[in-house]
Amino acid sequence: MELSQILFTHKQVTGGDMPSLLEQEIYSQPDVIARLLDKETQHIQQIVAQLPGFDYILIAARGSSDHAATYAKYAWATMARYPVALAAPSLQTLYDTPPRMNNALVVGISQSGQSPDIVAVLEEGKRQGRPTIAITNDSNSALAKAADHVVELHAGQERSVAATKTYTAQLAVMMLFAASWSGDQQRLGELNQIPEAINQALLSASEIAQRTERYRYMNQCVVVGRGYNYATSFELALKLKELTYVMATAYSSADFRHGPIATIEEGLPTILTMPGGAAFPDMIELAKELQKRQAELLIISDAEEALKLAQTPFTIPTGVPEWLSPITAIIPGQLFGLHLTLTKRLQPDTPRGLNKITLTL
Amino acid sequence: MELSQILFTHKQVTGGDMPSLLEQEIYSQPDVIARLLDKETQHIQQIVAQLPGFDYILIAARGSSDHAATYAKYAWATMARYPVALAAPSLQTLYDTPPRMNNALVVGISQSGQSPDIVAVLEEGKRQGRPTIAITNDSNSALAKAADHVVELHAGQERSVAATKTYTAQLAVMMLFAASWSGDQQRLGELNQIPEAINQALLSASEIAQRTERYRYMNQCVVVGRGYNYATSFELALKLKELTYVMATAYSSADFRHGPIATIEEGLPTILTMPGGAAFPDMIELAKELQKRQAELLIISDAEEALKLAQTPFTIPTGVPEWLSPITAIIPGQLFGLHLTLTKRLQPDTPRGLNKITLTL
Repeated sequence: MELSQILFTHKQVTGGDMPSLLEQEIYSQPDVIARLLDKETQHIQQIVAQLPGFDYILIAARGSSDHAATYAKYAWATMARYPVALAAPSLQTLYDTPPRMNNALVVGISQSGQSPDIVAVLEEGKRQGRPTIAITNDSNSALAKAADHVVELHAGQERSVAATKTYTAQLAVMMLFAASWSGDQQRLGELNQIPEAINQALLSASEIAQRTERYRYMNQCVVVGRGYNYATSFELALKLKELTYVMATAYSSADFRHGPIATIEEGLPTILTMPGGAAFPDMIELAKELQKRQAELLIISDAEEALKLAQTPFTIPTGVPEWLSPITAIIPGQLFGLHLTLTKRLQPDTPRGLNKITLTL
Repeated sequence: MELSQILFTHKQVTGGDMPSLLEQEIYSQPDVIARLLDKETQHIQQIVAQLPGFDYILIAARGSSDHAATYAKYAWATMARYPVALAAPSLQTLYDTPPRMNNALVVGISQSGQSPDIVAVLEEGKRQGRPTIAITNDSNSALAKAADHVVELHAGQERSVAATKTYTAQLAVMMLFAASWSGDQQRLGELNQIPEAINQALLSASEIAQRTERYRYMNQCVVVGRGYNYATSFELALKLKELTYVMATAYSSADFRHGPIATIEEGLPTILTMPGGAAFPDMIELAKELQKRQAELLIISDAEEALKLAQTPFTIPTGVPEWLSPITAIIPGQLFGLHLTLTKRLQPDTPRGLNKITLTL
């Protein structure tokens, strides 16, 4: 989307003059993803061709990057049968006992590429002679320097504290690896529809802005997804926490039934991310149970059967295969976060007590 | 602890006549763990000696069992340098694409041994010719039948919906494997102090009951731990959600700083699980920052330096090494959960909308 269009949409939706950095970055995503696909598709196929053998993949990441890693745990297994272990960087930085990484591919994901604990995991991988990949928005960062292969996000500087464009760019990188490993050209082809699908999802902004009014005084909520969209529920909950200070708790529907469902009471806002696909039947069953318990349902879906159960339906474009749906399903979540921030009269670009770069040791 | 002692303590603390199943099971933990150590220490050493080689460990678990797995992610790496991957059972049950488990040891943890998705992961491990271990309270369960080796929890039937004794028993099993793999006899010796340390921790019950009054109207809170006690924060949050319906959200201190810290406002109950050890300096820094932000601090620790920062200190026994501290650190959490349930006039043994056994597909 061009800046002029963003400004026009912004004025229509909010009546205000200048969109926040957050809003600008949300709207830049179709371009960011199109550029990334253009610049990295071939590169990632080359990396895949050059990698030595490995049995499983160890990913180190924190915050939104960790949610991209969680997506990979599903997509890299369904598409290429690789098990994914999420690293516990504290093993190096606190306990000084890095695990033996025999037969692992080691991947680090960090927008800034500066988080010392993520860098430490990659450096340890290299020390142990394992192949390493850095996925970062800064190809000159410490993370990039520690890796055999660097995949750049090409997202431009992210100035908003809450990550949006770098999260979807990281998802797209995970999708490119999944498709490349699958060896299935059709998968790679499917990826090309993403920029336009994000554009479509962004068109619902004014409707979302309107519906958000209702949640002006919400102070807690639950977010549930499963399978590929398990990650979406965590990312959406994090956006709400960072931007609106709402106590949002994320679950997979499976874990949710193992206890936390007890917290549901009449009127509790419950956001379900449930595009059509293999996880849908389980999610629809949960939605019906939550309806019985009189939860307030906000449903992100492309399926009428789901949307009609919601007090607040968030429609996403149809025709996007389930494995790509996390990238469209997070868009209404980002917009809901943005507009709830504005509705609550908070500052989208300067959440209290946060810095853009978190240096965890 | 003998039942007569439990009844006596219960009467002293609550003034009531009959302790709930939950309370009885909480107080049975010293005996449960002593029995488990007695019956399984040698058995686990035998299993360890018989296992073929493997590069990493894939654990399938849900709910409290998943928190025991999270503990293992730290302890099995620090003690034996094994990387741990937490399985995504949906890969089998929803997507029908189980990962290739080359060079993995496959472990399933389930109190009942009945969860179909956890059983499916173990069966797939066997199909792929990998070594499999079941950790369960029922040696006749489907999970036990699917495994090469079965470690029983010997916890007696768990009748309370909220798991307590089977959680600490699972932790003890994880500790036994860690110590056995480490080959360090001193580690195994350290384990013998646990039953008495739990007893000591239980002695603070009447003080905890008293202090819990203050939280009668709490409806949300945050729980933070790191390293070995990352798992403790998740388990404690789950107890609060199941029993008291408080919206409790768990974090590692590292992830917490990546965004969710924005949710902290004056008076927000924030529970820190921070026994002395390698994670302590980071946790104390966080505690001081939260104090500045005027959070209400509830601190579980054996260190005066930490306890003095708290509005509500929960003292645990000193002299327990950090790697064993999750088993004592959860005790005040269980007691806080129990007494908050009673203070809120809820039913500890019948949380709304939960069953003891959750059959996830």
